[in-house]
Amino acid sequence: MREIKIVITGFGTVGYRTAKLLLERAERYRSLYQTNVRLIAVCGSTSGLYDPDGLNWDRLQPLTKQAGGVSGDPAAASQFTGASFVAAAGADVLIEAGPTNLQDGGAAARYMRAALQGGMHVIALSKGALVTDYPGLSRLAAEHGGVLKISGATAAALPTIDLLQYNLAGCRVHELTGIFTGTANYILSRMVGEGAELGEAVSDAQRKGIAEPDPRYDIDGWDTACKLTILANAGFQANIRLSQVERSGIGQITPEQIKQWRESGVVPKLTGRLRFADDKVQAEVGLSLYPLDHPLARVNGTKKAILVKTEEMGELFVAGGKSDPGAAAAAALKDLEHLLQRR
Amino acid sequence: MREIKIVITGFGTVGYRTAKLLLERAERYRSLYQTNVRLIAVCGSTSGLYDPDGLNWDRLQPLTKQAGGVSGDPAAASQFTGASFVAAAGADVLIEAGPTNLQDGGAAARYMRAALQGGMHVIALSKGALVTDYPGLSRLAAEHGGVLKISGATAAALPTIDLLQYNLAGCRVHELTGIFTGTANYILSRMVGEGAELGEAVSDAQRKGIAEPDPRYDIDGWDTACKLTILANAGFQANIRLSQVERSGIGQITPEQIKQWRESGVVPKLTGRLRFADDKVQAEVGLSLYPLDHPLARVNGTKKAILVKTEEMGELFVAGGKSDPGAAAAAALKDLEHLLQRR
Repeated sequence: MREIKIVITGFGTVGYRTAKLLLERAERYRSLYQTNVRLIAVCGSTSGLYDPDGLNWDRLQPLTKQAGGVSGDPAAASQFTGASFVAAAGADVLIEAGPTNLQDGGAAARYMRAALQGGMHVIALSKGALVTDYPGLSRLAAEHGGVLKISGATAAALPTIDLLQYNLAGCRVHELTGIFTGTANYILSRMVGEGAELGEAVSDAQRKGIAEPDPRYDIDGWDTACKLTILANAGFQANIRLSQVERSGIGQITPEQIKQWRESGVVPKLTGRLRFADDKVQAEVGLSLYPLDHPLARVNGTKKAILVKTEEMGELFVAGGKSDPGAAAAAALKDLEHLLQRR
Repeated sequence: MREIKIVITGFGTVGYRTAKLLLERAERYRSLYQTNVRLIAVCGSTSGLYDPDGLNWDRLQPLTKQAGGVSGDPAAASQFTGASFVAAAGADVLIEAGPTNLQDGGAAARYMRAALQGGMHVIALSKGALVTDYPGLSRLAAEHGGVLKISGATAAALPTIDLLQYNLAGCRVHELTGIFTGTANYILSRMVGEGAELGEAVSDAQRKGIAEPDPRYDIDGWDTACKLTILANAGFQANIRLSQVERSGIGQITPEQIKQWRESGVVPKLTGRLRFADDKVQAEVGLSLYPLDHPLARVNGTKKAILVKTEEMGELFVAGGKSDPGAAAAAALKDLEHLLQRR
C-alpha cells in the first residue's frame, strides 16, 4: 500500500483540529485511496514532535493547543521545527496552519518554500505567504513537481478557488463578487438588522469568539482584500499585489446611512470584487448595496457567499460553509483528498 | 507535446455545440496543459465522420445538427459509427451526447462500455446508461484504468457531482436536496407566480423550447429521479435503482392548492432528496413546501439549485448555471479539463 507522510506546521487550534481529523480519517484513506496517510510531525514555532513511524492520538491528545511550541509532551524538541527541519523530515505533504504574516509571509512562507523546493505538496491554511508571493510559490511548485493547494486560505468551507479551478474550468469569468469575511458580515448584519452601533457589534462578536481582540483586520477590509488578492493570482494569474486592491471597510458607517439604506430597501454588504475587462483585472473591497431580493443581500451573520458571472455557464451563486476551526481543518483535508485523487 | 484524441457520439445540438467549443479551445489546451486535443470522430446513429488527423471547423460547420446521421458531409459513412467503431478508433476520450434511453441505456451504454473496455475515459452527457448501470460502468472504468465523468448528466452547469466528489471531499453528508429540472421549475414557477394552469404553463414552455413535445418526463419527476439515482450511485455508492426512488410530480397540482400555499406563505418546489441515516439512503422526488425566505423557495424559472447538509462544513447552497446546450457542452468540457489536470 502506498504511503503519504504529512507534516503540520503551526499547531494552534486549527493545526490541532486538522491533525485530529487526519488521524480519524486514516481508515477512509486506506479504503478509498489505498493509501496509508501518516502524520510524522507537528511543529509549533519553538518546538515540535517528530516520529517517522507516525504520531498517533495518544501522543497528540494531551498537547495543549497553544500557539508557539508544541507543549505538553516531553518528547517535543526544538530541533523538530523550522524550515530546515521541514525540508529534512522526509514528508510528502506540508499542511501549513501557522499565523498569517502580511509583511513577508513570515515563518509560513519559509516552511512552504522549503517544502516546495524539496518536491513536497503544500496545503496552505494561513494567508500571509500566499498574499505576499503566490506567483513565486506557484512557480516553485511547478519547477519541483509539487502542487500548492489553498482552499483553507480562501474562505475554507465555502468553495472559492475550487469554483475557479475546477467547477468552472474552461469558462470565461466576467466578474466575481464575494462576502468573504464572516466576522465583518456578522458585525454589519448586527448593525443593519438590529440597529447595533459598530462598537457594540464588535464587542458582541468578540464575546462570541468571532472577532479578534484587534478587529481592524476584518472591519477595515484587509481580510477580504487578502482573499481577493489570492483568488486573483491563483484563479486568474493576475499577478496583483495587496496594495493594488482598492479597499474600504465598514468602520465609517453611520446610523444615518443605515436608516437611509433601510428606507431605500437596500442592504449593505462588505464585498470583494474582481472585474475582468480588456484583459485587465480590477480588484475592489468595499460596501456594495443590494436590493432585498438579491442573493447576496440574504447572506447574514457569519455566513459567506460568492457570485460568479461566466460566459458559458451563466451565473453561479454559492453560499454557506461553516466558519470555525473544524471547518477550516475539513477544507485543508479536502485539499489533501484532491492530491490523493490525482495520484 | 502530448496528444489526446476525442470521439463524440450523438451528434444532435449538444454534441455539435461540444465539438464547436472543443475546437475553439484548442489553443487553451495547448498553452495550459501542453496538450494537443484532437477531435478525430463525430458519430450519429447511422453514420459518422472520421479523420485520424483531426476534424476541423471547416468539416464540422456545414453539418446539419439533426439526430440520426451526421448529415451534410459527403465523407460521412456508416462504418464510422457504432460501438465497434468507437472501440477501434484509437481515441483516448469518448464524449457521449446521444439520446437518453432509460430501458437499458441503449446505444449510449454500448458506446460507453466499448470505450471503457478499451481503456478510454468517458464523459457522459446523456443519462440513460448512468441511470441503468452506473455501478457496472464505474467498475469497468476502474478495471481498465479509465475515468468516468458525469457532470453533463447531473444538472450540467450547476455543480452537483462535483460538490460531492470534490468540493466536499471527505465530508459526511446528512442530506442533499435539489431543484434539478429546469423545465419543471419553469412550469411550476409560472403556475405559482402567475396563476397559470398546468396546460397553459406547459404550452408556454414548449413554445419557448424549454419543454419537450411530451413533457411527462419532466412533469412527472422522471428527470429529477434520474439525476437523483445517478448522484446516489456516483456520489455515495448507494447502488439504488430508478424504481427505488419514491416519485411524484407536479401534474396533479390544483388551483386550490396553489391558493392555499400562497395564503400560508409557502412555495412549492419539485425537489429530489437524498437522506442518509443508519448507513441507509432514502431517495425521494416530489413537492417540497418552503417558507418564502428559504433559499430553495427563491429559485425560479429554469434555474436549478442544490442544498447539501454536511457534518464538517455545515450547509452549502449552490444556485444557477445556465440550462441550454451551450452550458451542457461547457459542463462536458469542464470534465475534460479535470482529466487534463489529472495527467
